[in-house]
Amino acid sequence: MPEDLPDSVRREARRTLLNWLGCAIGGSRHEALDIAIGALSQFSGPPQATVLGRVERFDILHAALLNGISSHVFDFDDTHLKTVIHPAGPVASAILSLAEYRPTTGRDFLNALVLGIETECRIGKAVYPAHYEVGWHITGTTGVFGAAAAAGKLLGLEERQMAWALGLAATQPVGLREMFGTMTKSFHPGRAAQNGLTAALLAARGYTSSETAIEAKRGWANVTSTQHHYAAITEGLCSTYEILFNTYKPFACGIVIHPSIDGCIQLRNENALDADAIDSIKLRVNQLVLELTGKRTPHSGLEGKFSVFHACAVAIVEGAAGEQQFSDRAVQDPQIIRLRDKITAVAADMPPEAAEIEIRMQDGRHLQTFVRHAVGSIERPMTDADLEGKFRGLTEGILPVERVRQVMNLCWRLEELGDVAEIARAAGG
Amino acid sequence: MPEDLPDSVRREARRTLLNWLGCAIGGSRHEALDIAIGALSQFSGPPQATVLGRVERFDILHAALLNGISSHVFDFDDTHLKTVIHPAGPVASAILSLAEYRPTTGRDFLNALVLGIETECRIGKAVYPAHYEVGWHITGTTGVFGAAAAAGKLLGLEERQMAWALGLAATQPVGLREMFGTMTKSFHPGRAAQNGLTAALLAARGYTSSETAIEAKRGWANVTSTQHHYAAITEGLCSTYEILFNTYKPFACGIVIHPSIDGCIQLRNENALDADAIDSIKLRVNQLVLELTGKRTPHSGLEGKFSVFHACAVAIVEGAAGEQQFSDRAVQDPQIIRLRDKITAVAADMPPEAAEIEIRMQDGRHLQTFVRHAVGSIERPMTDADLEGKFRGLTEGILPVERVRQVMNLCWRLEELGDVAEIARAAGG
Repeated sequence: MPEDLPDSVRREARRTLLNWLGCAIGGSRHEALDIAIGALSQFSGPPQATVLGRVERFDILHAALLNGISSHVFDFDDTHLKTVIHPAGPVASAILSLAEYRPTTGRDFLNALVLGIETECRIGKAVYPAHYEVGWHITGTTGVFGAAAAAGKLLGLEERQMAWALGLAATQPVGLREMFGTMTKSFHPGRAAQNGLTAALLAARGYTSSETAIEAKRGWANVTSTQHHYAAITEGLCSTYEILFNTYKPFACGIVIHPSIDGCIQLRNENALDADAIDSIKLRVNQLVLELTGKRTPHSGLEGKFSVFHACAVAIVEGAAGEQQFSDRAVQDPQIIRLRDKITAVAADMPPEAAEIEIRMQDGRHLQTFVRHAVGSIERPMTDADLEGKFRGLTEGILPVERVRQVMNLCWRLEELGDVAEIARAAGG
Repeated sequence: MPEDLPDSVRREARRTLLNWLGCAIGGSRHEALDIAIGALSQFSGPPQATVLGRVERFDILHAALLNGISSHVFDFDDTHLKTVIHPAGPVASAILSLAEYRPTTGRDFLNALVLGIETECRIGKAVYPAHYEVGWHITGTTGVFGAAAAAGKLLGLEERQMAWALGLAATQPVGLREMFGTMTKSFHPGRAAQNGLTAALLAARGYTSSETAIEAKRGWANVTSTQHHYAAITEGLCSTYEILFNTYKPFACGIVIHPSIDGCIQLRNENALDADAIDSIKLRVNQLVLELTGKRTPHSGLEGKFSVFHACAVAIVEGAAGEQQFSDRAVQDPQIIRLRDKITAVAADMPPEAAEIEIRMQDGRHLQTFVRHAVGSIERPMTDADLEGKFRGLTEGILPVERVRQVMNLCWRLEELGDVAEIARAAGG
């Protein structure tokens, strides 16, 4: 029951929903969405559900797919660090579409969202890291369970039907890691949402499946992983919640450069820095930062995500490192390029979640900070205000300003809503 | 080009198509279809394609799913024995639906069908048996490649797009063997057809994917199999054809009892046997027959499939062992039960594809036959007339008699057809 969930869990569910909505609306103009919509629209059923950030409406199965794609296309969605699952995409994409078709209260929706995230993360814990090391994109392979469980909850499945839904989910995992770097990566949470929703709809009508789909000899865990730890699925159920370990990225790039960006923004804000008054910046970082993001002269926004130099420069000039700061525009901005070329980075004996930033000003001042854990980590979670800032950055130019505010308010008020479809309507293009 | 295919290959393609159509029409009244249609119809797009044997029409993606389910629901479809793949279901379900949406000549359709079957069987050979032993239902996991390749061919994909289509196929394999015995087993070829068709449609619009999806370090073969033999995919391409190794079941039950049924029907026909004049029947069979089909008193049609005693009795009384002979009606028929109880079976030093049948008549006559390879095997393939008989048995009572004849004629004349949709229209309910 929704009222049995601790306040902390309910709060995190609202935050997860807001973050997911921002990512999906922000990603809605990506080429991958245009292509998928172009390829599939002529096969869609009635316009039952919203494609977030867009005017097109699709049947709920296609809407689940499309919203799942857009929510992951920037790699900016939530992360359950224990399993590297991105939990919201498969689950929220499935049930927000379903809620547009079957009126659903905010309380029931929140409860299903938590259930779905709990399901996928716990199944993920049971096979991580072996399953991931085999080569599965764990967001798509466990996400289908999360989507099936959450949709099944909203459909009122009985115990046996729920087992069938999980069986139908188990038999259609999505996602090879080989697809990273292509549009197919973002297809994974979308298809997981669609598959899980399909599984629940079929099970609700009596489509039979295995009732031991995960743990059987030839079940999902044995087939897709070399190791498993089934107790992780059930231990502490209803007393510990995996959603409390969900994290949100404040910056639209790989996590290894987050400490450096965080430190730069701190120094900028504390000292009202003028980029042109800076003489030099020296970063001391983990070796991994140089390996993964050592690109000195990025030419495109995408390349900018692999340049700690660009990331820190744009962060100081613009005070942010969202998707707009990794655009072609930002990467080609003369002021940002001038500052970028004043930055050096050296590998130091430093954990990957930390960084040291040293800035010399032309007037001789010397500024310095050490970041032990970047904002967005479990240790320093984004505040609600941070999440609102991220949401605004992602949705600016896509939704009218008053609707940006409206969607945020609806998320915070989720449990008061009589019909969750209100959120989807407000978040349409 | 279709005209480059050897006559033997083109003939087998027509036979495979006919057999698949019969299975799908025959399976169209199965509960699994009713459930799937009930669960999904409200989300279907425009009525673009036929559900074989039924009046409902769905968008092409859903039609591919539904026809794939019905074609496998009796376990009566074709078998590529080298890999235990059921090749037609995923491929034909995808492209017949597509051909109803985009007019397609019979020659192009035949070419795509052969290409799809070649693709799935060759990829299957590259990982069989290890992949199957891991627990994958190889029909669903390789079928998605076959469907993507065949649909991609009809969509005119260029080389790079075809690679993307195979990438999108690789990332969504369907089917755990754990699902055997439930409706989810027949979901596998259906979903494989739908996934492969989706993959081709997305790739045609430029949705990118890995171009080394099968053979990459974290590609499909390494992730889903412990062994692989990539040369099997390409060796002898365009000189040997896997479709020539496709087989069709004459009897609607597990293959281990086919030699016994075959022998009984031979003795019946040669001697115009009257069941009530039989004193006793003794079967000498491989040990496996008793293990898998040793049920003495089946109560339902489904249980009858696991009773060599029922199978042989009904074969002698009715001269056939199709789906109708494994109905509740047949299993409860007093004459068949009387004969069944006169049958004994003993394990003998006999290969599983052989059986010896000995019948003693009440008038003292003694009849005997030895079956080395049952009809339907590679060594004794079903004739075209056998396939027509099977088709009639499956479609009787579902299609009007004149349409049964029409569909068979359209299959035999496939390459003359200007528009393959004619077949689908004739095979609708």
